[in-house]
Amino acid sequence: MSANTFGHLFRVTTFGESHGPAIGGVIDGCPAGLPIDLAFIASEMRRRKPGQSSITTPRVEDDEVEILSGVFEGRSTGTPIGFLIKNKDQKSSDYDALKDVFRPGHADFTYNAKYGIRDHRGSGRASARETAARVFAGAIAKLYLLQKGISVSAYVHSVHEIAIEKPLETLDLSLTEQSIVRCPDAETADKMIALIEKMRDEGDSVGGTIVCVCKGVPAGLGEPVFDKLHAQLGHAILSINAVKGFEIGDGFASTLRKGSENNDSIRNGIASNHDGGIQGGISNGKDIIFKAALKPVSTISKQQTTTDIVGNTISLEAKGRHDPCVLPRAVPIVEAMAALVIMDNYLLNKVQKETI
Amino acid sequence: MSANTFGHLFRVTTFGESHGPAIGGVIDGCPAGLPIDLAFIASEMRRRKPGQSSITTPRVEDDEVEILSGVFEGRSTGTPIGFLIKNKDQKSSDYDALKDVFRPGHADFTYNAKYGIRDHRGSGRASARETAARVFAGAIAKLYLLQKGISVSAYVHSVHEIAIEKPLETLDLSLTEQSIVRCPDAETADKMIALIEKMRDEGDSVGGTIVCVCKGVPAGLGEPVFDKLHAQLGHAILSINAVKGFEIGDGFASTLRKGSENNDSIRNGIASNHDGGIQGGISNGKDIIFKAALKPVSTISKQQTTTDIVGNTISLEAKGRHDPCVLPRAVPIVEAMAALVIMDNYLLNKVQKETI
Amino acid sequence: MSANTFGHLFRVTTFGESHGPAIGGVIDGCPAGLPIDLAFIASEMRRRKPGQSSITTPRVEDDEVEILSGVFEGRSTGTPIGFLIKNKDQKSSDYDALKDVFRPGHADFTYNAKYGIRDHRGSGRASARETAARVFAGAIAKLYLLQKGISVSAYVHSVHEIAIEKPLETLDLSLTEQSIVRCPDAETADKMIALIEKMRDEGDSVGGTIVCVCKGVPAGLGEPVFDKLHAQLGHAILSINAVKGFEIGDGFASTLRKGSENNDSIRNGIASNHDGGIQGGISNGKDIIFKAALKPVSTISKQQTTTDIVGNTISLEAKGRHDPCVLPRAVPIVEAMAALVIMDNYLLNKVQKETI
Amino acid sequence: MSANTFGHLFRVTTFGESHGPAIGGVIDGCPAGLPIDLAFIASEMRRRKPGQSSITTPRVEDDEVEILSGVFEGRSTGTPIGFLIKNKDQKSSDYDALKDVFRPGHADFTYNAKYGIRDHRGSGRASARETAARVFAGAIAKLYLLQKGISVSAYVHSVHEIAIEKPLETLDLSLTEQSIVRCPDAETADKMIALIEKMRDEGDSVGGTIVCVCKGVPAGLGEPVFDKLHAQLGHAILSINAVKGFEIGDGFASTLRKGSENNDSIRNGIASNHDGGIQGGISNGKDIIFKAALKPVSTISKQQTTTDIVGNTISLEAKGRHDPCVLPRAVPIVEAMAALVIMDNYLLNKVQKETI
Repeated sequence: MSANTFGHLFRVTTFGESHGPAIGGVIDGCPAGLPIDLAFIASEMRRRKPGQSSITTPRVEDDEVEILSGVFEGRSTGTPIGFLIKNKDQKSSDYDALKDVFRPGHADFTYNAKYGIRDHRGSGRASARETAARVFAGAIAKLYLLQKGISVSAYVHSVHEIAIEKPLETLDLSLTEQSIVRCPDAETADKMIALIEKMRDEGDSVGGTIVCVCKGVPAGLGEPVFDKLHAQLGHAILSINAVKGFEIGDGFASTLRKGSENNDSIRNGIASNHDGGIQGGISNGKDIIFKAALKPVSTISKQQTTTDIVGNTISLEAKGRHDPCVLPRAVPIVEAMAALVIMDNYLLNKVQKETI
Repeated sequence: MSANTFGHLFRVTTFGESHGPAIGGVIDGCPAGLPIDLAFIASEMRRRKPGQSSITTPRVEDDEVEILSGVFEGRSTGTPIGFLIKNKDQKSSDYDALKDVFRPGHADFTYNAKYGIRDHRGSGRASARETAARVFAGAIAKLYLLQKGISVSAYVHSVHEIAIEKPLETLDLSLTEQSIVRCPDAETADKMIALIEKMRDEGDSVGGTIVCVCKGVPAGLGEPVFDKLHAQLGHAILSINAVKGFEIGDGFASTLRKGSENNDSIRNGIASNHDGGIQGGISNGKDIIFKAALKPVSTISKQQTTTDIVGNTISLEAKGRHDPCVLPRAVPIVEAMAALVIMDNYLLNKVQKETI
Repeated sequence: MSANTFGHLFRVTTFGESHGPAIGGVIDGCPAGLPIDLAFIASEMRRRKPGQSSITTPRVEDDEVEILSGVFEGRSTGTPIGFLIKNKDQKSSDYDALKDVFRPGHADFTYNAKYGIRDHRGSGRASARETAARVFAGAIAKLYLLQKGISVSAYVHSVHEIAIEKPLETLDLSLTEQSIVRCPDAETADKMIALIEKMRDEGDSVGGTIVCVCKGVPAGLGEPVFDKLHAQLGHAILSINAVKGFEIGDGFASTLRKGSENNDSIRNGIASNHDGGIQGGISNGKDIIFKAALKPVSTISKQQTTTDIVGNTISLEAKGRHDPCVLPRAVPIVEAMAALVIMDNYLLNKVQKETI
Repeated sequence: MSANTFGHLFRVTTFGESHGPAIGGVIDGCPAGLPIDLAFIASEMRRRKPGQSSITTPRVEDDEVEILSGVFEGRSTGTPIGFLIKNKDQKSSDYDALKDVFRPGHADFTYNAKYGIRDHRGSGRASARETAARVFAGAIAKLYLLQKGISVSAYVHSVHEIAIEKPLETLDLSLTEQSIVRCPDAETADKMIALIEKMRDEGDSVGGTIVCVCKGVPAGLGEPVFDKLHAQLGHAILSINAVKGFEIGDGFASTLRKGSENNDSIRNGIASNHDGGIQGGISNGKDIIFKAALKPVSTISKQQTTTDIVGNTISLEAKGRHDPCVLPRAVPIVEAMAALVIMDNYLLNKVQKETI
């Protein structure tokens, strides 16, 4: 069991609560000799950090990463990379009233059921702040994958009922970062932003879907049975806060097609990609494409009725500073988790075929 | 990396190709003293086996399990349970023509890319025959869970465009096994069967969705970060052949709701269950409900164009005996994988809280 | 926890009790394309099997391995290698009287304490018969290592007080197999055999030490901290029945030397090897040399006093057919476990340095 | 592969080089609700820290642990315990001359062979400073075990040729901490101290043996096959810097006894303990006793000849501040590793027997 560790050959272990002194972790298994580009890492951290635009939480956190080991003279040494991200802008008093209350949709009740004790401040370990550590680890993985010609790019495909209607092939993913909502289609992005602002003003929240495209993944990555590549990706993506659904390739839509319509052929050049780049659990060299569904974030300012720890009915109005829609900030997290999976399988694949 | 092993405390390792002498595996970590009900195991195996009805493959295999170790005088001993299921009705000659051909939608090309060598007969390791070992392991897990008052029941929710339209609460899941398509709603089942027979006659195939309901799971199972209970379930279900999508609770539909509409409160008795029984990665005591999407099976009798190992274009017509729709036989596999995850987390939860 | 699984990238999982229908297991992670030399495997199995000479147990077992999967047209396919070794010459009735008795020095009491239930026949899972599966897995590992120029050779260094007195450098290890006691020094071997025959006739048993030499291991294998190469080797060797001690290089003798006497320099050609080929947990390119201590086997024919399951004092005289000295048959087991460790680390090392 | 992680249910992952900003790690799997006694932890850290007496290195480090997560209001929360120990008294310039030199007996050459890059300052990751993180994790494990009535006590049994000659049963282990050499026999301790001082003055070093006694361990802990309890202990202890040998119970001495002399009976009260409290890999309720051999520390001030990275012969005289004998400071490290193993197996044992 590896609750707070992810990966097999390239492994990240994380720790930290949102209102403790710091979060952080350890990356173990990074090959020695990889140039560690600090500017790239910082830019990835900025994509996830709070307060980055008018449609995210107004909390201010720099999310600066301190690397404590495993890097020497600009390169990885093969030894574990310890890292810290200090917590700075906590307002723990915001949470005093919540000490004994189970907020609807949150992990308050379930943590209490499991452990009998919890750090209630800012959702404690269940806070999405934990994902900052994932983005750092994902940045290291991306640096490795870039050297191999592999890129991982996600974007917001839909927010509530507003969805990109153009086909993926027609989108220019290099435009994603130009939009504060991280939607590469400008027209759709504007509508998404307007909706999120409306939700913010109403004290409500909305979810949506994120699509991720991995280009340059060679054929042959993944495992045949329990660890099919898309099963690993699904595990990774479903482990992100608020994610409630995962599809590889056409996913649920493929159930509405016949075999004769859905089968991807292997003919070079012409082939379809209903399977999303993975067949029999192993990459086939085409783009790996998957989609994640994120529910509306549970923290809202509207009044809600819930229960406290002794069973009293409670009327609750959240005071914390929260995101009306987490999707823009979830884009780099989705990319990070995908990068971790692909790097891990890239390394593994190096030892599975005898070349003598 | 645990390619052919699933689980942490309760682990199953499997082996076997569809046209070798046998498939089988090892269950490690089964608590000692569990009564092993062989009749129950045999009934589970029959639910998955080929040739069980007019809408499945006509291959005849008994799928009789030989238990080789780990059970003594009717109870588990705590030592590993080795088991074998012999392959009997193989017609390897059916596959001679496929030795160097990559069938569309199959794992032929990807196995070749990964390993440079493959047992092409009956899809080799990529054959769904491998799932018989999962159903056996799942049967052991179900025996354990039944003692704890936990049940795992799946059913076919949709086949192609034919779906149950009644709400889950109104279905009588005890009727599932009375239908050869394993749909508990008789009217819908009839339509599904008619469609599958049509596909069989046309030499085509269809997919669909399976819903699984786990009742009696206590609050507190699962892990907070990378191994959220639904991430483990997603991993398990996505590792089943043909599964291309996974949703926990309302999944993709929850993206169309606002936070104020979607949040599950903890009030006893009245609470909604949009989250599908898991919050923050940990079970909350309500029914765990998830849905899987299965693509139409890739093997069809219709003529298809593909490529062989040296790049020639090939016109292909499958000769093997296959299922026009795998969903009826996939129901027990989905249950098995869910049972493995829940048992594993049930065991783990025993050690996570100090009661002194 | 991986009780019945050994290894990380090259993993063997075993099952089986000595008096059940068969023992066996699964090898997962064998690289695809390795030629599987069945004659070599059979010869390794013969080195461990009972009844091979006048100084081993007279039980007759062929220890023939049936490979059930993972090998196609003479080569490994990268998928798991399932295998079986049937049990043939059991006399379970020999053990009827032992059902409720805890034999001194055995695992009877401890299994009962742990599991509350046990298969008492022939020591059940605690029987050294389990090691046949290790020898098979080790044979596969040796086939791989031989291709890389790595050999693993063990021999009996001492039996009770009789030990080889010549230095290791002067021994011809190719002579080991010419002696039924597997001691490469003929004169010492004769004395060992005479002693073992005396013990057999007295109904008693003796232990001794086994030395293992691994040649051709490249520098750089192993892990720096918890999984130092000699820690992994120690784990592997101490997991063999009857092993009670492990030394790498000079081991306990190095405590009697000063640092200035003990330090191995890196000067080519002249260097000493007190460290046994491993420094800081990583191989340095010299021969890896370790020694194991095996206690006298617990099963003896002499009368002993012990306790039964309800606490009565019992006078016991073993009836089973046993080895007066297990060392000759333990030599291939030691080699097998060492080969598993070295192969696993060889594979791992392929991914730990970035070569771009 | 878990190079920098130790344990299965109670896991510690560590990071850090001796001359980086800090070392630290993450403990995952600590049961929730455990009182965390900071004073006890600090006292354990002081037992390992440099500069504690006249016979250890004069480096001054406080080894103060900062706990960053996983503890709330004095108790563990079940979430990961992140921790840091800052490096303070480094003199990196001491190591400038060693950048391209391979010191005899050290990991310099092997790290270079493995990774092609290394942090040469203060031995980098290979520094025994890494063990401070182990002592912290071991302190948490000891707090848990103490609640269960289990204690783990080690002491220095021999230094070079000076060994305690009294039997273990006659020693008062509560005296161990009263001696700066951590030998509970005052007379022997004095001789050891005199020898170590002599070595320090000569610029040389000595090794020795440490014995560890675990009391109160219930019968039933451990695993039957590859993860026998003493195999796990051996792995743990052999992973400590400078350890070259491990014995459980009588170890190598048991090879000089016959079965009839060596077999431990199960009769309450009278029984011998040649097996050191473990039979068939599982604890039998008696004291668990093992011994470790530590080679003389490789860093000495005497002149030595070695090689640099380009193959030149180098005459070397160490300048760093080092211990002439590491055994006194290794005692708490041995205890820590033993405590980690026993706690891990204690937790595991909770789920292995069905009590219904």
